[in-house]
Amino acid sequence: MKLSRRDFFGAAGVGAAGVVALGAGGIASSRAAAPADQGTTTASGAVEFHGAHQAGITTPAQDRLHFVAFDVITDDRAALVRMLQQWTQAARRMTRGQDAGPVGAVAGGDYAPPDDTGEAMGLPPAGLTLTIGFGPTLFTAADGTDRFGIADRRPDALVPLPAFPGDELVPAISDGDLCIQACADDPQVAVHAVRNLARIGQGLVGVRWSQLGFGRTSSTTSDQATPRNLFGFKDGTDNLKAEQTATLDRFVWVDDPGSWMHGGSYLVSRRIRMLVEVWDRQGLRDQEQTIGRTKGTGAPLGQQAEFDPVDLSALPATSHVSLAHPTNAGTAILRRGYSFVDGSDGLGRLDAGLFFLCYQADPATGFVQVQRNLRTDKLNEYVQHTSSALFACPPGLAGEDDWWGSGLFG
Amino acid sequence: MKLSRRDFFGAAGVGAAGVVALGAGGIASSRAAAPADQGTTTASGAVEFHGAHQAGITTPAQDRLHFVAFDVITDDRAALVRMLQQWTQAARRMTRGQDAGPVGAVAGGDYAPPDDTGEAMGLPPAGLTLTIGFGPTLFTAADGTDRFGIADRRPDALVPLPAFPGDELVPAISDGDLCIQACADDPQVAVHAVRNLARIGQGLVGVRWSQLGFGRTSSTTSDQATPRNLFGFKDGTDNLKAEQTATLDRFVWVDDPGSWMHGGSYLVSRRIRMLVEVWDRQGLRDQEQTIGRTKGTGAPLGQQAEFDPVDLSALPATSHVSLAHPTNAGTAILRRGYSFVDGSDGLGRLDAGLFFLCYQADPATGFVQVQRNLRTDKLNEYVQHTSSALFACPPGLAGEDDWWGSGLFG
Repeated sequence: MKLSRRDFFGAAGVGAAGVVALGAGGIASSRAAAPADQGTTTASGAVEFHGAHQAGITTPAQDRLHFVAFDVITDDRAALVRMLQQWTQAARRMTRGQDAGPVGAVAGGDYAPPDDTGEAMGLPPAGLTLTIGFGPTLFTAADGTDRFGIADRRPDALVPLPAFPGDELVPAISDGDLCIQACADDPQVAVHAVRNLARIGQGLVGVRWSQLGFGRTSSTTSDQATPRNLFGFKDGTDNLKAEQTATLDRFVWVDDPGSWMHGGSYLVSRRIRMLVEVWDRQGLRDQEQTIGRTKGTGAPLGQQAEFDPVDLSALPATSHVSLAHPTNAGTAILRRGYSFVDGSDGLGRLDAGLFFLCYQADPATGFVQVQRNLRTDKLNEYVQHTSSALFACPPGLAGEDDWWGSGLFG
Repeated sequence: MKLSRRDFFGAAGVGAAGVVALGAGGIASSRAAAPADQGTTTASGAVEFHGAHQAGITTPAQDRLHFVAFDVITDDRAALVRMLQQWTQAARRMTRGQDAGPVGAVAGGDYAPPDDTGEAMGLPPAGLTLTIGFGPTLFTAADGTDRFGIADRRPDALVPLPAFPGDELVPAISDGDLCIQACADDPQVAVHAVRNLARIGQGLVGVRWSQLGFGRTSSTTSDQATPRNLFGFKDGTDNLKAEQTATLDRFVWVDDPGSWMHGGSYLVSRRIRMLVEVWDRQGLRDQEQTIGRTKGTGAPLGQQAEFDPVDLSALPATSHVSLAHPTNAGTAILRRGYSFVDGSDGLGRLDAGLFFLCYQADPATGFVQVQRNLRTDKLNEYVQHTSSALFACPPGLAGEDDWWGSGLFG
């Protein structure tokens, strides 16, 4: 049976009373029964929401992304906690292919705003995952105040990223108190989820910045084909994969029993503008020497096939693959980025690139170490980092009564 | 057999010589043989490029859009014509699921830039259509000059749209000398096509503005389900459909034998920001009275089912459906819009809405007449028009030797 969103607004033409009845009965009966591991995709296309880790990290990378960073605009801890609880309930429902609202507009009837905005009605779950993260400024605001009494709960690893050579960061589209990573195979489903969380948070949070992405640029499981990025190269061949559980335990999941982050992961986002017009004027050989792989097969230079081992002696020392390779970087990160096109730049060029997302157990030995190693990367000529953010993504939820932030605020 | 993009860069690991050989042989043999009507989708998922009308107008609306408007930055008519011929050839190839380049890097070997950027390698045609339009400023530049000797060939219908009450147009993302509407079921395929046309036009055209869209907001054939827009309502129920050939002949296709626009159509684009946060605070009843349809079924108010006839007496006179309805507007247009989310607006809100596209035989009796009729539309409270453009889309191409602009420049 294909689970699809229940028709919250009464597709049978019933009025407000019918809506409420559907709201109470229809949902309970369609709820997923047995909890599975987070990230497990059911026959209906729904990804299990609960588990040791949040879904959306090692879940097979979906095709589309809507990422949003929020500013918290209230100083009221209780109101923030209530919102996080409402968000969790809505996320639980939406990832199951249901609409956001737990009940119809009981109090106001159809004079009240609907509990779901409606644009995903009739669409399947589409593999939706919703992953939450907490930014450094949630713990201590920019002005130094401890708004929510959690300053002393900030993990040592959650400090703003250092500056990197060549950064051209725009503060208005960087950082944030909270983030939601919504991934789905249908952009309308991802947008619907973000928009409904924003709606639920009205008056408590404001959208600081938001980024749409398409064309996942990494595989996160061994059975996914390696996609191509906007430079036309296969990207993420040597990415960590969900099956490498020991490696994930070492490099991706926080191992700190007793801490609220135990089982969580740190998320770094970087909006990387790619100067595609400049790149397109480079010769094929130049492009391949810059990346360190052949464009056609994706094989490391000097090798025959994509998954042949990288022979560092056959690659220019300043090629991207050489510098980013775990052997050289001395670490590993789980990449989960998407391509983007955000219109044009006013100079006759597309504003296009890679919205880079990566997960790691510690940003200092993850992204920061990798990025520092890239300071001589030949690819730097063709890219500009315009946005940067860091979030602490807590572990997964234990069950129906658990909520996003229970470990931090509970 | 599933037609997929040939591996331009030599997936078998061959070098430059092999690439050229593939370029000459591989393509010819995989070319579609018999021409069909434009807009016909083959088993491979490719849409026929040739025909009486351009594809991408009545073609079943694909799921994704990349729309781009170009400024022509040369005054050299011959160079512009050469580029249009190269564009046509590349478009012909890409809509068939091939890459953009007709040949490998013959002259420069792999020291030359590739003739295709590569990011669509291995992807199917994905129903790609590429539709070209000519803006008023192509005929007479903003400074009044007749750069290309075609000022006297400008159709009378191709005059800038009048101002409408409430317009908040941003000049930098309005108008343009040329436009390309790329529609596909995979955004990477649409983006790849636009990006390669821009690459071919380097030095002759610059990207003026560009818009990505998802979630088609209209059906263009009777067998497509009506999608929902970001207000959560079914949109385009009463749209013109490809099967209504007599109505299309009357309202969509230019009927002017002997003119280079005979069989063409005029395209109006409007980027309509939707104030979704304001909308989401309205009661369900308010929303339905504003639109004139029920949110669940999409039935006109007072009716039971989506396709029941609109009973104008049951609708508020200022509802959107009432004012936009052909009976009241006295005309009809073929809508083909897409939803968009372009990040946030700096005020805590999503920058989201509808990229409205419509085709008509005459803008004056099409979009202009409809839009004037909407001056009292209750929906105006929730929308802002931020971009506007008008383009003359020539008829379809006769065959392999025909090219975009042959009627205008030939």
